[in-house]
Amino acid sequence: MAKLIGKAVIAQGGGPTAVINQSLAGVVFQVRQHSHISHLYGAIHGVRGIIDEKFMDLEKVSSRNMEDVARTPGAALGSTRDKPDEEYCEKIFKVFKKHDIRYFFYIGGNDSADTCRIVNEQSNVHNYDLRVFHIPKTIDNDLLVTDHTPGFPSAAKFVVQAFAGVNFDNAAIPGVYIGVVMGRHAGFLTASSAYARKYKTDGPHLIYVPERSFSIDRFISDVENVLSENNRCMIALSEGIVDDEGNPIISKLQEKIEKDSHGNIQLSGSGQLGDALSKIIREKLKVKRVRSDTFGYLQRSFLGCVSALDAAEAKESAEYAVNISGLVEADGSITMHRVGDYSVEFRLTELAQVARKTKSMPDEFISDDNKYIKKAFLDYIRPLVGELPAYTKLSAFKIV
Amino acid sequence: MAKLIGKAVIAQGGGPTAVINQSLAGVVFQVRQHSHISHLYGAIHGVRGIIDEKFMDLEKVSSRNMEDVARTPGAALGSTRDKPDEEYCEKIFKVFKKHDIRYFFYIGGNDSADTCRIVNEQSNVHNYDLRVFHIPKTIDNDLLVTDHTPGFPSAAKFVVQAFAGVNFDNAAIPGVYIGVVMGRHAGFLTASSAYARKYKTDGPHLIYVPERSFSIDRFISDVENVLSENNRCMIALSEGIVDDEGNPIISKLQEKIEKDSHGNIQLSGSGQLGDALSKIIREKLKVKRVRSDTFGYLQRSFLGCVSALDAAEAKESAEYAVNISGLVEADGSITMHRVGDYSVEFRLTELAQVARKTKSMPDEFISDDNKYIKKAFLDYIRPLVGELPAYTKLSAFKIV
Repeated sequence: MAKLIGKAVIAQGGGPTAVINQSLAGVVFQVRQHSHISHLYGAIHGVRGIIDEKFMDLEKVSSRNMEDVARTPGAALGSTRDKPDEEYCEKIFKVFKKHDIRYFFYIGGNDSADTCRIVNEQSNVHNYDLRVFHIPKTIDNDLLVTDHTPGFPSAAKFVVQAFAGVNFDNAAIPGVYIGVVMGRHAGFLTASSAYARKYKTDGPHLIYVPERSFSIDRFISDVENVLSENNRCMIALSEGIVDDEGNPIISKLQEKIEKDSHGNIQLSGSGQLGDALSKIIREKLKVKRVRSDTFGYLQRSFLGCVSALDAAEAKESAEYAVNISGLVEADGSITMHRVGDYSVEFRLTELAQVARKTKSMPDEFISDDNKYIKKAFLDYIRPLVGELPAYTKLSAFKIV
Repeated sequence: MAKLIGKAVIAQGGGPTAVINQSLAGVVFQVRQHSHISHLYGAIHGVRGIIDEKFMDLEKVSSRNMEDVARTPGAALGSTRDKPDEEYCEKIFKVFKKHDIRYFFYIGGNDSADTCRIVNEQSNVHNYDLRVFHIPKTIDNDLLVTDHTPGFPSAAKFVVQAFAGVNFDNAAIPGVYIGVVMGRHAGFLTASSAYARKYKTDGPHLIYVPERSFSIDRFISDVENVLSENNRCMIALSEGIVDDEGNPIISKLQEKIEKDSHGNIQLSGSGQLGDALSKIIREKLKVKRVRSDTFGYLQRSFLGCVSALDAAEAKESAEYAVNISGLVEADGSITMHRVGDYSVEFRLTELAQVARKTKSMPDEFISDDNKYIKKAFLDYIRPLVGELPAYTKLSAFKIV
């Protein structure tokens, strides 16, 4: 093949993560090693920036700035919640054509993968040479094919450090504690809380994920059982837990529900679910001290809580995308495959296999009684979260 | 003087902090250097453990365990919300007499200082030789005399890292963000959020502390002004903000308010205040994307977010208490006095000067329009919070 030479656009889409800028830096630095990309444009606020033709020149960025940006949470180029349809993608394609863009790198989740897929289809229809690469990121870890997604390990580390710390707070002043974790459909992030647990008496004692139906009656009885054994109870639950019919628990508990700009029930950025469940426990079990924290935006953007492996993989995924773009005449999503214990191999996977699809926690990760996780899940996340700060309980003798 | 020789009790009271166990370790290790303390008892769950005569033997703790415990958030001995009155303190005193306890070290806030004061008075009345030392801790930083309290700098660091990170998230997907920070009467912790701000456009753009009355109308207009300049708005506010008459804003906004075991309105462990203010902004200003996070227990117990200075000072305060207990025939609270830029000197302050009293943010720290802080506050907390992980915004040229 004659190598396709031309400009490239990079964009960031969807909810930011702690390492999404590592992927940006990976593309920015790696492009400098290649001659097939003549110029690198950064779209401001994702695909919205493309159709508005708002671009940053990513060649004239200093190394120091780019390295510091890589360590900074949030999407440095700006992000968007726009979910492009065919018409929107046609606009994107037209801008690409106008500016002679030949490479498109899109860092995002399964919606962003779908945008890549449609834009790619349109370039084929119009017989316009365009290579499209989806570089995964999402704290939800809900993409198909890949072993895990960049962004998830750092968010998991935040959840682990939160539960590891609050466990000692809750042990010091016993009561019921509910930690509400992000995750509309996939429970990976909530399940990660189990990694915080060192001793059997440590929390979280109960974990509820959206993959299993949640019953308020069962929940009350689960909490009651833990309290009778432990004198305290810590619960990790996904914001997206649903009942038998698949209705969000939050919509059953609250009369007036806020909806987001897509008409979805707003799960994040509000303490409603935790507050409503706290009230139930307080009333039904007559427990005085019931507290709930909704981890909210901190879990995806807290400064200084990053898994070292995650940062490295987020960057390497992006470097792989640039490298492969110069090697093969193909488009795709960059997926990670666990080939060693622990090591991953990067591959280019067809966009259609990733686009718009959602991965859930497999059965082998969820305990049969639906209120905790299985050891297989801990084996899965151990290398991803990596080393934690030291923490332990006091080991002393009682004076009798 | 003939040196008083006898057993010592150490206890931890009130809400735990990230470094309260550094103070515990300070006492445990320093006691080993002195001969005037014959035996060190750790009271389980604070003063409650004293009256129940539940003690741990803190001499036979391994160094490794104690060092790891020191780095662990939460009160390792257990804490209590009991606020002892005269009768309760008499019980404490009787247990001390029964076990021939001659030294009492109590790590806690102003309520704990008051317990120290009463127990000390009773020992004087009964002509029983007892030395009582209050070792300060509180994330609220609301103790008198001392420059600042151990526990505050680490909590402030958490708030700073939270706002520093969410700032980039909010810049990537603009909207209104409300971060609700602990602080019933003192705004120090909320004010710390300002330290996260690197550029003028960074958040938080508005800061509200309980020292100034909060008006919902003014709040709406403040947010509107920031939005018109910035296209986004980040707000830090104390859970304890009050109206002109001193009534908590949360009680005006919600019909049914949860009360804690003391009959106080429950401010922490619930997202009510942030949710209610979000709703108002959404309705009054027609802003679609309004999110609030209530930092809750994470700000005092998140694993791995500790100010190095805070850890060192928490330990040194406790070491000072043990050292001074062998040197002078006096009781008191260990206070820190800023004598250099930056260095502190430890002093023994009369218990009555600290007990039950509450320090507020001085006027020189709060901006005259009551919606931000003054530079003097940043000068005050800079050495306390110390170095942060690297973070910055992308510095690139626009393509025109």
